[in-house]
Amino acid sequence: MPVLVMKFGGTSVANLDRIRRAAKRVGVEVAKGYDVIVIVSAMSGKTNELVGWVEETSPLFDAREYDAVVSSGENVTAGLMALTLQEMDVPARSWQGWQVPLKTTSAHSAARIVEIPTENISQKFAEGMRVAVVAGFQGISPEGRITTLGRGGSDTTAVAFAAAFGAERCDIYTDVDGVYTTDPRICDKARKLDKIAFEEMLELASLGAKVLQTRSVELAMRYGVKLRVLSSFEEQSDKAGTLVCAEEDIMESNVVNGVAYSRDEAKLTLLSVADRPGIAATIFTALSEAGVNVDMIVQNISEEGRTDMTFSCPTNEVARAEAALDRIKQDGHLNYAELVADTDVAKVSVVGIGMRSQSGVAAKMFKVLSDEGINIKVITTSEIKISVLIDRKYMELAVQSLHDAFELDKAA
Amino acid sequence: MPVLVMKFGGTSVANLDRIRRAAKRVGVEVAKGYDVIVIVSAMSGKTNELVGWVEETSPLFDAREYDAVVSSGENVTAGLMALTLQEMDVPARSWQGWQVPLKTTSAHSAARIVEIPTENISQKFAEGMRVAVVAGFQGISPEGRITTLGRGGSDTTAVAFAAAFGAERCDIYTDVDGVYTTDPRICDKARKLDKIAFEEMLELASLGAKVLQTRSVELAMRYGVKLRVLSSFEEQSDKAGTLVCAEEDIMESNVVNGVAYSRDEAKLTLLSVADRPGIAATIFTALSEAGVNVDMIVQNISEEGRTDMTFSCPTNEVARAEAALDRIKQDGHLNYAELVADTDVAKVSVVGIGMRSQSGVAAKMFKVLSDEGINIKVITTSEIKISVLIDRKYMELAVQSLHDAFELDKAA
Repeated sequence: MPVLVMKFGGTSVANLDRIRRAAKRVGVEVAKGYDVIVIVSAMSGKTNELVGWVEETSPLFDAREYDAVVSSGENVTAGLMALTLQEMDVPARSWQGWQVPLKTTSAHSAARIVEIPTENISQKFAEGMRVAVVAGFQGISPEGRITTLGRGGSDTTAVAFAAAFGAERCDIYTDVDGVYTTDPRICDKARKLDKIAFEEMLELASLGAKVLQTRSVELAMRYGVKLRVLSSFEEQSDKAGTLVCAEEDIMESNVVNGVAYSRDEAKLTLLSVADRPGIAATIFTALSEAGVNVDMIVQNISEEGRTDMTFSCPTNEVARAEAALDRIKQDGHLNYAELVADTDVAKVSVVGIGMRSQSGVAAKMFKVLSDEGINIKVITTSEIKISVLIDRKYMELAVQSLHDAFELDKAA
Repeated sequence: MPVLVMKFGGTSVANLDRIRRAAKRVGVEVAKGYDVIVIVSAMSGKTNELVGWVEETSPLFDAREYDAVVSSGENVTAGLMALTLQEMDVPARSWQGWQVPLKTTSAHSAARIVEIPTENISQKFAEGMRVAVVAGFQGISPEGRITTLGRGGSDTTAVAFAAAFGAERCDIYTDVDGVYTTDPRICDKARKLDKIAFEEMLELASLGAKVLQTRSVELAMRYGVKLRVLSSFEEQSDKAGTLVCAEEDIMESNVVNGVAYSRDEAKLTLLSVADRPGIAATIFTALSEAGVNVDMIVQNISEEGRTDMTFSCPTNEVARAEAALDRIKQDGHLNYAELVADTDVAKVSVVGIGMRSQSGVAAKMFKVLSDEGINIKVITTSEIKISVLIDRKYMELAVQSLHDAFELDKAA
């Protein structure tokens, strides 16, 4: 029988009622003839409680014990989901990570999946079991200890199972009903997309659209797993949600498919840096070692051997960046006049695979912003994305104007 | 290095503060030179929460899923305890049942321990680890599924580990500071015993003194494991608590060492039963099949082919007993005039291994009760115990009078 993977996040299994609702959806797919692998998260709030206990006990905790404690939340949901399905007369049982066994690296709290043997579960399917409920987010290390996959680990678990079992699709049930052209909270014309390409989803995810974890989308792209994002709180048809799939599975697409934003950006400029070979490496090595996540980088042309260097990073990393740069200045590795930090900025981006074959998107974007009187502070581009840094107070306006200008409220 | 097993119950690990306090006690034993195996329960309340969820989800639950869910509480405590010890610079790590592996039968929710291989943990001790923190109450079945050992399973886990590792002693930390001659809440002269024999402890446990589970005492007796019961809420010396040990380890003992009681008793009498061979078997087979836990049984002498049959059982099983007896009467398997239930009774017992070699204990007991004007309704005796059923309103008076008469407030 064809296999379907269904993943339910923490809010979708927050209590027994919601677990029952999720189980009903699983029952619908079983009735259609699928053998279903269900991946569950911990009931919402549980993982945070466990993490809190670990951190209070031991600020610099042993990650192996952290994993042993934190993984327990998913085990509870897996058992309860299996029991709920059994109550509905659906043959089901639970698996904890080590029972599959889902083999991972030894990088505790951030382990990577090495292998998912399918024999155990496939044999049970052959014997008439219809649903394997698997505790997400966890696995077992070569040393036989419990590992966790880090943030978004349950999405990643789901995609990995879909790849291992050659599943027809991997449905991610969450608290939103799909991927939107932009955030409906700041643009009421936002439209749910029926389909989106992996590459676009990756750009949107990394730009702060928190529907899917980057890592799970990467994995789905690598193994060609069709991912569907849909709400566990609404009645579903077969066309519900958003399908994240390969470019070739999308017949027609707008040039721009999404407008993303990030409020949490700061712009830092090093004024009058002595411009000599290797200076950029010096700066960004120091920032990387200080744990600063640099996003955009712009270097102005050099005049009389000096240049200005601008970069952006998350607002809460500004102090760390300033300290790191000051240190290399004191040490004599870097010579600059001043470091100016602007924490009142936001990043706005347009994303679309159509950009690859169509020119003029950047020009149009800049004109739209200019017409609204919005000054662009930094620009970066990739093959399918253009991002600009602007004053934060114009963020909503920029998103709405771009959404209008690229006609994102209309399907292709 | 000699091995010590220390077990902490739910109230002793109820929150991070208490886990820290428990860890300090473990640290003291490590400093004395012991390699310590710590057995932990779930934080108090957690197991009940999990059981509640399972029962609400599925009244006739699959015990395999019940075990998978309910065992998670102990895993959390084990990890937190290991982290706490590490913070105190004591080399420690946690083990879940399947990691040991603690092998059990497949009787889910009431599994019995089959084997505890010592290699894994012994090797870590050899490498310098000082404390193995083991999640109590759980194991793994031959099919690779998680099992639990049923009520009191963590005490049993502790004793089994002590037996497997040849531990010098098994310390059970709980919320009372030892075993008393009787319940201090109803007799203010109650005295803590320094030592008590396994056999006496078994009688007291089965009589409702809830300090230790019967099963763990049986196991300790079989393998000669010295058990110590002590409080995790008081400062401890080496003489703290009560040592439960073999008779030969106790030099001097009172004839009677404890007065136990049980409020939760009912007396049922079948009046004028047709007395023929096999009638007792008919009655008690029917009661056993109905799940009634019959305790005392008394049959009066037969007159003119009819007799009266009296037995006791827990109060909440009276309705079930009545239904079962009515059924076999209707079916024609049993002929009796009337069934009289008296739910206003209590059981009071005196226990002591000294009774084996000293006569007159029963006579003294009956005289004490008679002097207080307390009527005895049923009597049963074993080698080291005499139990009587009396009106419940006299229960406290009976306990206090017997405690005085046998001078239990004075050590041997």
